[in-house]
Amino acid sequence: MKIGLVGLGRMGYALALNMKDCGVEVIATNRSLDKVDEIAKEGIKGAYSLKEMVDAFGDERRVIWLMVPSGEPVDAMIEELIPLLNFNDIIIDGGNSYYKDTVARYQRLKAIGLQFLDVGTSGGISGARNGACLMAGGEEEPVKYIEPVLEKISIENGYGYFGAPGSGHYVKMIHNGIEYGMMQAIGEGFDILKASEFDIDFELTSKVWSNGSIIEGLLMRLMHEAFKQDADLSQIVGKVDASGEADWTLLEAVRLKVSAPVITQSLFTRYKSKDDERFSEKAVAALRNQFGGHKVYKA
Amino acid sequence: MKIGLVGLGRMGYALALNMKDCGVEVIATNRSLDKVDEIAKEGIKGAYSLKEMVDAFGDERRVIWLMVPSGEPVDAMIEELIPLLNFNDIIIDGGNSYYKDTVARYQRLKAIGLQFLDVGTSGGISGARNGACLMAGGEEEPVKYIEPVLEKISIENGYGYFGAPGSGHYVKMIHNGIEYGMMQAIGEGFDILKASEFDIDFELTSKVWSNGSIIEGLLMRLMHEAFKQDADLSQIVGKVDASGEADWTLLEAVRLKVSAPVITQSLFTRYKSKDDERFSEKAVAALRNQFGGHKVYKA
Repeated sequence: MKIGLVGLGRMGYALALNMKDCGVEVIATNRSLDKVDEIAKEGIKGAYSLKEMVDAFGDERRVIWLMVPSGEPVDAMIEELIPLLNFNDIIIDGGNSYYKDTVARYQRLKAIGLQFLDVGTSGGISGARNGACLMAGGEEEPVKYIEPVLEKISIENGYGYFGAPGSGHYVKMIHNGIEYGMMQAIGEGFDILKASEFDIDFELTSKVWSNGSIIEGLLMRLMHEAFKQDADLSQIVGKVDASGEADWTLLEAVRLKVSAPVITQSLFTRYKSKDDERFSEKAVAALRNQFGGHKVYKA
Repeated sequence: MKIGLVGLGRMGYALALNMKDCGVEVIATNRSLDKVDEIAKEGIKGAYSLKEMVDAFGDERRVIWLMVPSGEPVDAMIEELIPLLNFNDIIIDGGNSYYKDTVARYQRLKAIGLQFLDVGTSGGISGARNGACLMAGGEEEPVKYIEPVLEKISIENGYGYFGAPGSGHYVKMIHNGIEYGMMQAIGEGFDILKASEFDIDFELTSKVWSNGSIIEGLLMRLMHEAFKQDADLSQIVGKVDASGEADWTLLEAVRLKVSAPVITQSLFTRYKSKDDERFSEKAVAALRNQFGGHKVYKA
């Protein structure tokens, strides 16, 4: 099968190489063309425009896999692709799009005779390169059409088809919400260890916890790698970005009226980590001072 | 090396078999003697009293491994053992004791010439049987003395010596605090999935997330096992006990003034799960009714 891959960022590039290793005929393109030159040297067919990529399919049904940043870039790429595609061709959004955007895109494309699938991708760059975790949603016919590729490029038992359009991105969104909570729990544990009077070796702790404990898993192994490189994380500033999926998870929790205190706290802790003004703390300090004359720290 | 194992509950029994497989000479005893009969049939030497167990060491330095419930049972066993032991003999507490109790026990035993080590054990019954995750604390000399056994019965890279007496139980306590947070994050994620309009297959979700995702690990694999057995957990009531370690983690967070919102929320969610009275919710409903005339649900 042929796949037209759009977007050779870290994830897209790794995925292209993975597809090639799995015997998929990849035609890869990217906005900045140096990446196309680069991947062509790996033996993958590079295309210097979307049209060149689409033309490479000849009479075959087109399967275009987008690995571009979520939001406007996805819409922009879809608009450029529409005039180049034939009835029933397939566009796959492999990025971290908001599932409501995915459902809207599916409906728009369905109305003009194109198929749109969502494939949430987990496992990081190493997973994309060597065997990803893939969460697919969309109409059954096009999913089954591309399923041989999904099964090949994913790790064993790491691919699932979850149903209606948007469900793949939905499951990926919840995955990321859980990830936030798990990461924050790990962070808090090491924070208490650090404050304790015991002189605990974090590299040893994360190594031991990575082997045979109840909290073992990829996140703990990555924590171990981090402590191996920097025993007390002295080279890292304690500010953490939030890239959207946990925000959406929280929006879902509120929409569905489901209590999700841990995911909420893990997201809000990230917001607070970047809040240099600390206005809520200023307000609390001011109130304490007002009612009790308690000391405030002066600017 | 000989080990006198006291306590043949699920963890102790599994550990005894593991030790035997590793070539350790185990002398096992238990309060209810039918368990001693049972383990004797597995080819492990059973002792029908602590004295019989201690006597089996002859002139050898005694190493007594306690696998009894934390709290009073540990103290009771120590008091019974003291008159039977010689100078420099070693008692190991392999249970989930509060580290402050461990430090106090170490000091009491040190003063009368006995060694006391703490070995936190993770990995569940399967780990205890086939290769545990072990977190040791205590004086260096006795730890090094028993280390060959710790290394044999643990999974590769799953054993660590963390230093001063109490440090093993401390690291295990934090491990359990992290575990609470990770479990609650997983629970919340599935709760949102369940409420959503997508008809998500939880068994498939937990399977896919167990293979190649960022949140893969033992907890997700166990979640998958649970969904395989009961696709919507209809046979399980949503009440969760808390067995102490997360309580202690929170006490530590407060003592050390470290913010741990996710571990806190995961523990308080367990408390709330067993709170049939819901008094705080009654109070909030009453206040809403008082200030705004909002409807209350009547008993």
